[in-house]
Amino acid sequence: MRVSIAGGSGYAGGELIRLLLGHPEVEIGQVTAESAAGHFIHSVHPNLRGRINQKFVPISELEPCDLLFLALPHGMSMDRIDEFAKLAPRLIDLSADFRLRRAAEYPRWYEREHPSPAWLERFVYGIPELHRQEISRSNYATGAGCNATATILGLKPLFQAGVVERAVVEVKVGSSEGGNSPSLASHHPERSGSLRSFAPVGHRHQAEMEQELAFFGKPEIYFSATAVEMVRGILMTAHVFTKEKLEERDVWKLYREAYADEPFIRLVHERRGIYRHPEPKILAGSNYCDIGFEVDETAKRVVILSAIDNLVKGASGNAVQAMNVMCGFPETAGLEFTGLHPI
Amino acid sequence: MRVSIAGGSGYAGGELIRLLLGHPEVEIGQVTAESAAGHFIHSVHPNLRGRINQKFVPISELEPCDLLFLALPHGMSMDRIDEFAKLAPRLIDLSADFRLRRAAEYPRWYEREHPSPAWLERFVYGIPELHRQEISRSNYATGAGCNATATILGLKPLFQAGVVERAVVEVKVGSSEGGNSPSLASHHPERSGSLRSFAPVGHRHQAEMEQELAFFGKPEIYFSATAVEMVRGILMTAHVFTKEKLEERDVWKLYREAYADEPFIRLVHERRGIYRHPEPKILAGSNYCDIGFEVDETAKRVVILSAIDNLVKGASGNAVQAMNVMCGFPETAGLEFTGLHPI
Amino acid sequence: MRVSIAGGSGYAGGELIRLLLGHPEVEIGQVTAESAAGHFIHSVHPNLRGRINQKFVPISELEPCDLLFLALPHGMSMDRIDEFAKLAPRLIDLSADFRLRRAAEYPRWYEREHPSPAWLERFVYGIPELHRQEISRSNYATGAGCNATATILGLKPLFQAGVVERAVVEVKVGSSEGGNSPSLASHHPERSGSLRSFAPVGHRHQAEMEQELAFFGKPEIYFSATAVEMVRGILMTAHVFTKEKLEERDVWKLYREAYADEPFIRLVHERRGIYRHPEPKILAGSNYCDIGFEVDETAKRVVILSAIDNLVKGASGNAVQAMNVMCGFPETAGLEFTGLHPI
Amino acid sequence: MRVSIAGGSGYAGGELIRLLLGHPEVEIGQVTAESAAGHFIHSVHPNLRGRINQKFVPISELEPCDLLFLALPHGMSMDRIDEFAKLAPRLIDLSADFRLRRAAEYPRWYEREHPSPAWLERFVYGIPELHRQEISRSNYATGAGCNATATILGLKPLFQAGVVERAVVEVKVGSSEGGNSPSLASHHPERSGSLRSFAPVGHRHQAEMEQELAFFGKPEIYFSATAVEMVRGILMTAHVFTKEKLEERDVWKLYREAYADEPFIRLVHERRGIYRHPEPKILAGSNYCDIGFEVDETAKRVVILSAIDNLVKGASGNAVQAMNVMCGFPETAGLEFTGLHPI
Repeated sequence: MRVSIAGGSGYAGGELIRLLLGHPEVEIGQVTAESAAGHFIHSVHPNLRGRINQKFVPISELEPCDLLFLALPHGMSMDRIDEFAKLAPRLIDLSADFRLRRAAEYPRWYEREHPSPAWLERFVYGIPELHRQEISRSNYATGAGCNATATILGLKPLFQAGVVERAVVEVKVGSSEGGNSPSLASHHPERSGSLRSFAPVGHRHQAEMEQELAFFGKPEIYFSATAVEMVRGILMTAHVFTKEKLEERDVWKLYREAYADEPFIRLVHERRGIYRHPEPKILAGSNYCDIGFEVDETAKRVVILSAIDNLVKGASGNAVQAMNVMCGFPETAGLEFTGLHPI
Repeated sequence: MRVSIAGGSGYAGGELIRLLLGHPEVEIGQVTAESAAGHFIHSVHPNLRGRINQKFVPISELEPCDLLFLALPHGMSMDRIDEFAKLAPRLIDLSADFRLRRAAEYPRWYEREHPSPAWLERFVYGIPELHRQEISRSNYATGAGCNATATILGLKPLFQAGVVERAVVEVKVGSSEGGNSPSLASHHPERSGSLRSFAPVGHRHQAEMEQELAFFGKPEIYFSATAVEMVRGILMTAHVFTKEKLEERDVWKLYREAYADEPFIRLVHERRGIYRHPEPKILAGSNYCDIGFEVDETAKRVVILSAIDNLVKGASGNAVQAMNVMCGFPETAGLEFTGLHPI
Repeated sequence: MRVSIAGGSGYAGGELIRLLLGHPEVEIGQVTAESAAGHFIHSVHPNLRGRINQKFVPISELEPCDLLFLALPHGMSMDRIDEFAKLAPRLIDLSADFRLRRAAEYPRWYEREHPSPAWLERFVYGIPELHRQEISRSNYATGAGCNATATILGLKPLFQAGVVERAVVEVKVGSSEGGNSPSLASHHPERSGSLRSFAPVGHRHQAEMEQELAFFGKPEIYFSATAVEMVRGILMTAHVFTKEKLEERDVWKLYREAYADEPFIRLVHERRGIYRHPEPKILAGSNYCDIGFEVDETAKRVVILSAIDNLVKGASGNAVQAMNVMCGFPETAGLEFTGLHPI
Repeated sequence: MRVSIAGGSGYAGGELIRLLLGHPEVEIGQVTAESAAGHFIHSVHPNLRGRINQKFVPISELEPCDLLFLALPHGMSMDRIDEFAKLAPRLIDLSADFRLRRAAEYPRWYEREHPSPAWLERFVYGIPELHRQEISRSNYATGAGCNATATILGLKPLFQAGVVERAVVEVKVGSSEGGNSPSLASHHPERSGSLRSFAPVGHRHQAEMEQELAFFGKPEIYFSATAVEMVRGILMTAHVFTKEKLEERDVWKLYREAYADEPFIRLVHERRGIYRHPEPKILAGSNYCDIGFEVDETAKRVVILSAIDNLVKGASGNAVQAMNVMCGFPETAGLEFTGLHPI
């Protein structure tokens, strides 16, 4: 199967290439980039030196292929979706352009009208752990926000069980989440060692969380995001207040039932050692979402922890996983890397 | 005034020496350490090379002095308090041994009976922003937990105003909070880059928070602590749910009234730039507590942010500030360092 | 083929397990550890959770296998080598115990007499780029020191060509090089952000460098090592003074001739971009040795740069590569991971 | 004394303000910045919040003052030097514009002719440890390159003694050395964790080193610079090959004679502990230059180590020290901060 990538010079694009190079069922067709067009892919993604000998092509030269990944900046896919749909029978979009079901949400969260609202219902919100069947029957999947992925996967069993009063979510994120465009905020002397509350309220990914956790009406989620010293990775800490007091065995039961068969979700809850809870650093490069918890014995509160690599399970790895589901490949194909320790 | 330090080889002890060396009103008498006794102070605190030519003495050789700082491991001051009180008319203790007013709390939070409960009421909880008058009239002050300091100072104006329904507090902390004893948890390859939820529930400092914020009964505070890649510093993020919706001007008013005259509290709330909210890294070495906030326009929620250097305002700087108040020195004496940028 | 590991709880042991789990030709037999015996492997190597369900066994319970990796602390393999040789027809040792050809070097560099000097000549110095044929014909290979690996591979083409007057080598290394035992030197608040000249002169790996680069007598190499803020990785910077002035094309020619067919050596020498020279961070987890250079136009000096992951090409990856050569497997089997960017 | 700063929005400018705020003999007049003109100084230097209430003014509004610091980008001071000289009787320039004595060096190292060559001889190369008397008699001092400062101070005693055959110098530097303009090279995901050989040959500061160490003709110095994970700080490692074998006592003697009375140079050479050699991290914010060494017993080689904070002793702190010497203030005035540990 021939797979191309529109928008291959960003961080998610680079990870897509890396993962697809190791995928037994596909070959990489074209990879587009505009300012880097004509340059070797490894000039932008130095880890791929010696692995791929192709050059970037401009998006105007994209040829038909069997599946097209869209890893373009937010707002570009929605403008050209009809064009892309003619190039490939299957599309997987990593941007936010088709994540929200209701067109009315776009002006609120993304400050613009959606130009192709009819396409919204054709796209499946492409996290296989949430919508595996729909993805397998669809030709169009959208990726999810990285913070939304960590949060939704971490909280779904509790919301689904209808036990949540409210959830207060704090994510800690690395600098790669901001993409590859330099700014004063990303300038190393400023960003290094920072603990920057860049979205104490009002983060866009909240729209996705509310959409995907709306089992019984709008879920009560309060979200904030803090940038920490890290390049890759997200740790979500959720203080979940429950309607009734939950015991440890209750929580275990809900999460085991939800995720026992998931190849990329690991429940992490140890009594000893220094890795008792999920830690994103050991997930760098892997597609795992590690989930853990701690019950507050003194209150109707459970603290849920989840960790992912924002560029893998939070972006490109999840997209490859969705492709595997969509195309009937083994779900873990190309996604076997297990992470490093120490790191 | 001659000031000695019992327990000068730890991180808080080192910072005490550094600050007292620059203090115009005191001279350093003895500094004790057990395993490092007989060695130069700069062999343990290399930044002090050339600044102090003394050697550590064992605690058994402590001589009378005008004021004695106790910077010993938790549990040692409470056992020997009568002995220390004979050596100096004024004591400032940095451990947890005299922080809690009620002796009954010690078995719960520190797993032991307090051996000298009569001393608890003699000690003032020594954060000047909370108890300036009592400190100025007392000869015994206790330091506060570093996480408690950041949390209490950040939340006090709201609790005092009686507007809080509940507060969910997440602190992110550096590795120096754990002290100077190596362990696998602090081993650099393991601790580096980590986002470790080391106290999702049940952190000891919660006892202090509840004690100091109990304006109208036990305050509803939910606390968790995460270790991040950093050596010094604490960022507290509190999601405060309020009984009524607060507007930005309401929050400003409460904080300005509470802290306008405080020399070490800065309100940080900018509309532009990358330092719009408090950031602990620019506080390294300084005694500031920076406090900021963001109002959630869609809910009865305010996010409060506060940042300190855990070894300065969270330990030794606050202790020097308490000494200044107790002894009638200018409150900022010895505490003028303003922090570095970039860092 | 059934492969066991003696000493699987260290960092090199963990990497061996990770690599062997992805190796198509082998299955992992036993993995030994002493204090962790009876515990799951993932309790020590958390990245392997869900990948391997075995527990560590004590070394006393080792059973016969087809190939035994020895990843024990220095000094343990040499004491028990006869015992290990009875357990497996093939041995690959990652310690320093069989690296030096001459027994007389051990007292000088490792402060003890070698107890089994007869074994020294049976072991091949197991860097395939240096001794591929010997490894393929031998049953006993020793790994190389990580700093030695980066240095020898970086400098061999110049020494082999006989053009070197002297080489001044500075390696910058991460904290994992020191192993997994905590100490004050590895305590995060001390080790973090450090630039520690831990071996300005007299590093043990110099013995290996001199041994392997002795094309025309003892090579003139001056070595020092500095610990930097990093967990994995080595960057070697060598100032090579040459007998005659070399031009850029001369250097290219020597390195291309030496390494054109090597699957794990990449020559990195770009005119533009920010990855013009080798960078260890993008090699984390990979078996590559990236090599680059810059000619000093004003002197008879060439600066050679080489980068590896100390735990992979500097230890376990190289050991797996040696196994592949020894056993006739494809040389890159199990070693396909290409590293991450950004990281 | 009224002191103004032309170019106060950069990192060196910010440090100048911080240091001058704590200086007992001066008051800060104006601080210029162009794009930040009209904004509060603390909007750019957040650590100064609450310490200075001034706003930046454009350089066109500079008024006469007693001493003017020039902290402008390279090339701006040389173009406007006559104008600045009319504003203040004393000038201290932190750029490279007046560092080199010979105008002919500017085209070679800075790619342009010097527009005001007559000014070159009026400026003293302003490192007090090198030219204290000249500074005290002059009204014009130039700062030194940060790498040059670390290198020259580290090597001068050996060159002065005439014992050096050649010196191979490797500096490791933090990201603040590159200034405050974002670029892909300084983008956190790329710069974080990097070990980037950004100047293996041909660094501009070599011109200063050769100028200042030319005791007996052009000194043989080979220099390279590597960027490491760090914001502030420089560690210089010099492999000095000597004409005759030096013993440890010889080296001690030379350095003690050279620096015994220097208030900002500390000799660091310990037999035990983890801070046996200079470490830049404990110098952050301080004006110290720590110097150490290790004798290679097997060769005519001495390894010299020196560490500074590139923004303090390598820039603004040294400039304040030069001002102190020039104006007859105590040399350490305003420069008492001793650095932090741990950090």
